[in-house]
Amino acid sequence: MSHEHLLAHLHAHYQGMPPVAAMEVAIAGYDGQALRLRAPLSRNVNDKGCAFGGSLSSLMTLAAWGVVSLHIQGAGMEAEVYIADCQVRYLAPLYADLEAQAQAGPDVVWHDFLATLAQRGRARAELVARVPLPEGGDAATFTARFVAFRKG
Amino acid sequence: MSHEHLLAHLHAHYQGMPPVAAMEVAIAGYDGQALRLRAPLSRNVNDKGCAFGGSLSSLMTLAAWGVVSLHIQGAGMEAEVYIADCQVRYLAPLYADLEAQAQAGPDVVWHDFLATLAQRGRARAELVARVPLPEGGDAATFTARFVAFRKG
Repeated sequence: MSHEHLLAHLHAHYQGMPPVAAMEVAIAGYDGQALRLRAPLSRNVNDKGCAFGGSLSSLMTLAAWGVVSLHIQGAGMEAEVYIADCQVRYLAPLYADLEAQAQAGPDVVWHDFLATLAQRGRARAELVARVPLPEGGDAATFTARFVAFRKG
Repeated sequence: MSHEHLLAHLHAHYQGMPPVAAMEVAIAGYDGQALRLRAPLSRNVNDKGCAFGGSLSSLMTLAAWGVVSLHIQGAGMEAEVYIADCQVRYLAPLYADLEAQAQAGPDVVWHDFLATLAQRGRARAELVARVPLPEGGDAATFTARFVAFRKG
Protein backbone atom coordinates (compact mmCIF):
# COMPACT_ATOMS: atom_id res chain seq x y z
CA MET A 1 0.00 0.00 0.00
CA SER A 2 1.11 3.56 -0.69
CA HIS A 3 1.63 6.12 2.06
CA GLU A 4 -1.65 7.89 1.21
CA HIS A 5 -3.48 4.59 1.11
CA LEU A 6 -2.15 3.57 4.53
CA LEU A 7 -3.18 6.90 6.07
CA ALA A 8 -6.66 6.75 4.51
CA HIS A 9 -7.02 3.26 5.95
CA LEU A 10 -5.89 4.48 9.38
CA HIS A 11 -8.30 7.43 9.25
CA ALA A 12 -11.24 5.10 8.44
CA HIS A 13 -10.13 2.89 11.29
CA TYR A 14 -10.18 5.75 13.81
CA GLN A 15 -13.57 6.99 12.60
CA GLY A 16 -15.04 3.51 13.07
CA MET A 17 -14.57 3.82 16.83
CA PRO A 18 -17.43 5.87 18.39
CA PRO A 19 -15.35 7.44 21.21
CA VAL A 20 -12.66 8.45 18.69
CA ALA A 21 -15.21 9.87 16.23
CA ALA A 22 -16.65 11.90 19.14
CA MET A 23 -13.19 13.35 19.79
CA GLU A 24 -13.07 14.43 16.09
CA VAL A 25 -9.58 13.03 15.62
CA ALA A 26 -7.78 13.92 12.38
CA ILE A 27 -4.43 12.84 10.97
CA ALA A 28 -2.12 15.87 10.84
CA GLY A 29 0.97 14.25 9.33
CA TYR A 30 3.24 11.23 9.06
CA ASP A 31 6.89 11.31 7.98
CA GLY A 32 7.50 7.56 8.12
CA GLN A 33 8.54 7.68 11.79
CA ALA A 34 6.38 10.15 13.74
CA LEU A 35 2.59 10.32 13.44
CA ARG A 36 0.74 13.50 14.41
CA LEU A 37 -2.96 13.47 15.31
CA ARG A 38 -5.12 16.50 16.04
CA ALA A 39 -8.40 16.99 17.87
CA PRO A 40 -10.29 20.25 18.52
CA LEU A 41 -10.33 21.60 22.09
CA SER A 42 -14.11 22.20 21.85
CA ARG A 43 -14.77 18.43 21.67
CA ASN A 44 -12.16 17.58 24.31
CA VAL A 45 -12.53 20.25 26.93
CA ASN A 46 -12.89 19.69 30.68
CA ASP A 47 -14.67 21.67 33.38
CA LYS A 48 -11.75 24.13 33.63
CA GLY A 49 -11.78 25.12 29.95
CA CYS A 50 -8.60 23.20 29.12
CA ALA A 51 -8.00 19.80 27.50
CA PHE A 52 -9.51 16.84 29.37
CA GLY A 53 -6.80 14.49 30.66
CA GLY A 54 -8.64 11.48 29.26
CA SER A 55 -8.63 13.03 25.79
CA LEU A 56 -4.90 13.81 25.99
CA SER A 57 -4.23 10.22 27.01
CA SER A 58 -6.55 8.79 24.34
CA LEU A 59 -5.01 10.91 21.57
CA MET A 60 -1.47 9.82 22.54
CA THR A 61 -2.64 6.19 22.73
CA LEU A 62 -4.22 6.43 19.26
CA ALA A 63 -1.14 8.08 17.76
CA ALA A 64 1.23 5.49 19.23
CA TRP A 65 -1.08 2.64 18.17
CA GLY A 66 -1.15 4.19 14.69
CA VAL A 67 2.66 4.23 14.40
CA VAL A 68 2.83 0.50 15.19
CA SER A 69 -0.01 -0.30 12.77
CA LEU A 70 1.51 1.78 9.95
CA HIS A 71 4.83 -0.06 10.24
CA ILE A 72 3.13 -3.47 10.18
CA GLN A 73 0.91 -2.62 7.22
CA GLY A 74 3.79 -0.93 5.44
CA ALA A 75 5.60 -4.28 5.59
CA GLY A 76 2.61 -6.01 4.01
CA MET A 77 1.54 -7.82 7.19
CA GLU A 78 -1.69 -7.83 9.16
CA ALA A 79 -1.83 -7.91 12.96
CA GLU A 80 -4.00 -7.06 15.94
CA VAL A 81 -2.21 -4.37 17.95
CA TYR A 82 -2.94 -3.98 21.67
CA ILE A 83 -1.68 -1.54 24.28
CA ALA A 84 -0.25 -3.45 27.27
CA ASP A 85 0.47 -0.58 29.65
CA CYS A 86 1.24 3.13 29.72
CA GLN A 87 2.53 5.93 31.88
CA VAL A 88 1.18 9.43 31.41
CA ARG A 89 2.47 12.67 32.89
CA TYR A 90 0.22 15.70 32.86
CA LEU A 91 2.59 18.65 32.96
CA ALA A 92 0.59 21.79 32.15
CA PRO A 93 -2.96 22.73 31.13
CA LEU A 94 -3.56 23.09 27.38
CA TYR A 95 -5.97 25.83 26.27
CA ALA A 96 -5.67 25.11 22.54
CA ASP A 97 -6.48 22.34 20.07
CA LEU A 98 -4.76 19.05 20.88
CA GLU A 99 -1.92 17.62 18.78
CA ALA A 100 -0.32 14.34 19.78
CA GLN A 101 3.03 13.27 18.28
CA ALA A 102 4.05 9.63 18.62
CA GLN A 103 7.06 7.60 17.54
CA ALA A 104 9.10 4.56 18.54
CA GLY A 105 10.95 4.62 21.84
CA PRO A 106 14.78 4.83 21.74
CA ASP A 107 15.29 1.02 21.84
CA VAL A 108 12.98 0.08 18.98
CA VAL A 109 14.45 -1.15 15.70
CA TRP A 110 11.51 -1.57 13.35
CA HIS A 111 13.33 -4.04 11.14
CA ASP A 112 13.83 -6.34 14.16
CA PHE A 113 10.25 -5.82 15.39
CA LEU A 114 8.86 -6.81 11.97
CA ALA A 115 11.19 -9.81 11.66
CA THR A 116 10.07 -11.04 15.10
CA LEU A 117 6.40 -10.57 14.16
CA ALA A 118 6.91 -12.48 10.90
CA GLN A 119 8.83 -15.35 12.54
CA ARG A 120 7.15 -15.75 15.94
CA GLY A 121 3.69 -14.35 15.23
CA ARG A 122 4.00 -11.72 17.95
CA ALA A 123 6.24 -8.79 18.82
CA ARG A 124 6.48 -5.97 21.37
CA ALA A 125 7.52 -2.35 21.04
CA GLU A 126 7.79 0.66 23.33
CA LEU A 127 6.33 3.89 21.98
CA VAL A 128 6.60 7.46 23.21
CA ALA A 129 4.24 10.36 22.63
CA ARG A 130 3.74 13.96 23.67
CA VAL A 131 1.22 16.76 23.34
CA PRO A 132 3.15 20.00 22.88
CA LEU A 133 2.02 23.37 24.23
CA PRO A 134 1.70 26.28 21.75
CA GLU A 135 4.05 28.31 23.97
CA GLY A 136 6.72 25.56 24.08
CA GLY A 137 7.13 22.57 26.38
CA ASP A 138 4.60 19.79 26.78
CA ALA A 139 1.08 19.52 28.14
CA ALA A 140 1.53 15.76 28.57
CA THR A 141 4.00 12.97 27.85
CA PHE A 142 3.37 9.26 27.42
CA THR A 143 5.33 6.01 27.34
CA ALA A 144 3.59 2.74 26.46
CA ARG A 145 4.24 -0.85 25.49
CA PHE A 146 2.32 -2.38 22.61
CA VAL A 147 1.97 -6.00 21.56
CA ALA A 148 1.15 -7.11 18.02
CA PHE A 149 -0.30 -10.53 17.13
CA ARG A 150 0.02 -11.49 13.49
CA LYS A 151 -3.22 -12.48 11.75
CA GLY A 152 -3.63 -15.30 9.26
CA MET B 1 -24.26 19.12 51.05
CA SER B 2 -26.03 15.78 51.31
CA HIS B 3 -24.73 12.64 49.64
CA GLU B 4 -27.41 12.83 46.92
CA HIS B 5 -26.68 16.50 46.36
CA LEU B 6 -22.95 15.83 45.97
CA LEU B 7 -23.54 13.06 43.45
CA ALA B 8 -26.04 15.17 41.46
CA HIS B 9 -23.41 17.91 41.37
CA LEU B 10 -20.75 15.44 40.21
CA HIS B 11 -23.05 14.05 37.52
CA ALA B 12 -23.74 17.56 36.17
CA HIS B 13 -20.02 18.18 36.21
CA TYR B 14 -19.26 15.09 34.10
CA GLN B 15 -22.04 15.89 31.62
CA GLY B 16 -20.63 19.38 31.12
CA MET B 17 -17.50 17.90 29.51
CA PRO B 18 -18.18 17.02 25.83
CA PRO B 19 -15.85 13.98 25.66
CA VAL B 20 -17.39 12.59 28.86
CA ALA B 21 -20.96 13.20 27.65
CA ALA B 22 -20.03 11.32 24.44
CA MET B 23 -18.90 8.35 26.55
CA GLU B 24 -22.37 8.39 28.24
CA VAL B 25 -20.84 8.14 31.71
CA ALA B 26 -23.25 7.45 34.58
CA ILE B 27 -22.69 7.24 38.34
CA ALA B 28 -23.34 3.66 39.47
CA GLY B 29 -22.72 4.06 43.19
CA TYR B 30 -20.76 5.67 46.01
CA ASP B 31 -20.37 4.26 49.51
CA GLY B 32 -18.35 7.12 50.96
CA GLN B 33 -15.02 5.55 49.90
CA ALA B 34 -15.33 3.91 46.48
CA LEU B 35 -17.00 5.56 43.50
CA ARG B 36 -18.33 3.43 40.63
CA LEU B 37 -18.90 4.86 37.15
CA ARG B 38 -20.47 3.08 34.20
CA ALA B 39 -20.37 3.62 30.46
CA PRO B 40 -21.99 1.53 27.70
CA LEU B 41 -19.72 -0.56 25.49
CA SER B 42 -21.54 0.69 22.36
CA ARG B 43 -20.24 4.25 22.93
CA ASN B 44 -16.75 3.10 23.93
CA VAL B 45 -15.94 0.27 21.57
CA ASN B 46 -12.76 -0.10 19.51
CA ASP B 47 -12.08 -1.73 16.15
CA LYS B 48 -11.94 -5.20 17.75
CA GLY B 49 -15.41 -5.04 19.33
CA CYS B 50 -14.07 -4.61 22.88
CA ALA B 51 -13.64 -1.56 25.09
CA PHE B 52 -11.34 1.14 23.71
CA GLY B 53 -8.25 1.57 25.92
CA GLY B 54 -8.69 5.33 25.93
CA SER B 55 -12.23 4.96 27.31
CA LEU B 56 -11.06 2.55 30.03
CA SER B 57 -8.36 5.02 31.01
CA SER B 58 -10.73 8.01 30.88
CA LEU B 59 -13.39 6.28 32.99
CA MET B 60 -10.83 5.36 35.67
CA THR B 61 -9.47 8.91 35.60
CA LEU B 62 -12.96 10.36 36.02
CA ALA B 63 -13.83 7.97 38.86
CA ALA B 64 -10.61 8.72 40.73
CA TRP B 65 -11.03 12.45 40.16
CA GLY B 66 -14.59 12.10 41.46
CA VAL B 67 -13.45 10.44 44.70
CA VAL B 68 -11.07 13.32 45.44
CA SER B 69 -13.70 15.94 44.58
CA LEU B 70 -16.40 14.25 46.70
CA HIS B 71 -14.13 14.22 49.75
CA ILE B 72 -13.26 17.90 49.32
CA GLN B 73 -16.86 19.00 48.79
CA GLY B 74 -18.04 16.74 51.60
CA ALA B 75 -15.74 18.72 53.89
CA GLY B 76 -17.33 21.98 52.74
CA MET B 77 -14.32 23.13 50.72
CA GLU B 78 -13.87 24.06 47.07
CA ALA B 79 -10.78 23.16 45.06
CA GLU B 80 -9.51 22.62 41.54
CA VAL B 81 -8.44 18.98 41.25
CA TYR B 82 -5.85 17.99 38.65
CA ILE B 83 -4.36 14.63 37.70
CA ALA B 84 -0.54 14.80 37.84
CA ASP B 85 0.37 11.39 36.44
CA CYS B 86 -0.98 7.87 36.03
CA GLN B 87 0.00 4.31 35.23
CA VAL B 88 -2.46 2.08 33.41
CA ARG B 89 -2.24 -1.66 32.83
CA TYR B 90 -4.45 -3.22 30.19
CA LEU B 91 -4.85 -6.83 31.28
CA ALA B 92 -7.65 -8.37 29.21
CA PRO B 93 -10.18 -7.30 26.57
CA LEU B 94 -13.62 -6.29 27.90
CA TYR B 95 -16.62 -7.26 25.75
CA ALA B 96 -19.25 -5.77 28.11
CA ASP B 97 -20.31 -2.38 29.47
CA LEU B 98 -17.55 -0.57 31.35
CA GLU B 99 -17.59 -0.06 35.11
CA ALA B 100 -14.71 1.72 36.81
CA GLN B 101 -14.25 1.54 40.59
CA ALA B 102 -11.95 4.09 42.24
CA GLN B 103 -10.83 4.75 45.79
CA ALA B 104 -7.92 6.13 47.76
CA GLY B 105 -4.57 4.36 47.56
CA PRO B 106 -3.37 2.49 50.68
CA ASP B 107 -1.38 5.44 52.08
CA VAL B 108 -4.12 8.08 51.91
CA VAL B 109 -5.72 9.32 55.12
CA TRP B 110 -8.52 11.65 54.02
CA HIS B 111 -8.54 13.53 57.31
CA ASP B 112 -4.87 14.45 56.80
CA PHE B 113 -5.40 15.29 53.11
CA LEU B 114 -8.24 17.69 53.99
CA ALA B 115 -6.29 19.25 56.85
CA THR B 116 -3.34 19.88 54.52
CA LEU B 117 -5.64 21.39 51.88
CA ALA B 118 -7.25 23.66 54.47
CA GLN B 119 -3.95 24.80 55.98
CA ARG B 120 -1.60 24.97 52.98
CA GLY B 121 -4.06 25.52 50.16
CA ARG B 122 -2.89 22.43 48.29
CA ALA B 123 -2.68 18.69 48.89
CA ARG B 124 -1.79 15.51 47.02
CA ALA B 125 -3.31 12.04 47.06
CA GLU B 126 -2.72 8.75 45.29
CA LEU B 127 -5.81 7.02 43.93
CA VAL B 128 -6.30 3.54 42.56
CA ALA B 129 -8.95 2.29 40.14
CA ARG B 130 -9.88 -0.84 38.23
CA VAL B 131 -12.34 -1.98 35.59
CA PRO B 132 -13.49 -5.49 36.52
CA LEU B 133 -14.30 -8.20 34.00
CA PRO B 134 -17.75 -9.86 34.22
CA GLU B 135 -16.00 -13.27 34.44
CA GLY B 136 -13.72 -12.13 37.30
CA GLY B 137 -10.34 -10.42 37.29
CA ASP B 138 -9.68 -7.02 35.77
CA ALA B 139 -9.74 -5.56 32.28
CA ALA B 140 -7.52 -2.69 33.44
CA THR B 141 -5.95 -1.23 36.57
CA PHE B 142 -4.86 2.32 37.29
CA THR B 143 -2.74 4.23 39.81
CA ALA B 144 -2.61 8.03 39.72
CA ARG B 145 -1.55 11.05 41.71
CA PHE B 146 -3.91 13.99 42.03
CA VAL B 147 -3.25 17.50 43.25
CA ALA B 148 -5.94 19.78 44.69
CA PHE B 149 -5.64 23.58 44.88
CA ARG B 150 -8.08 25.26 47.26
CA LYS B 151 -10.21 28.02 45.76
CA GLY B 152 -11.09 31.28 47.44
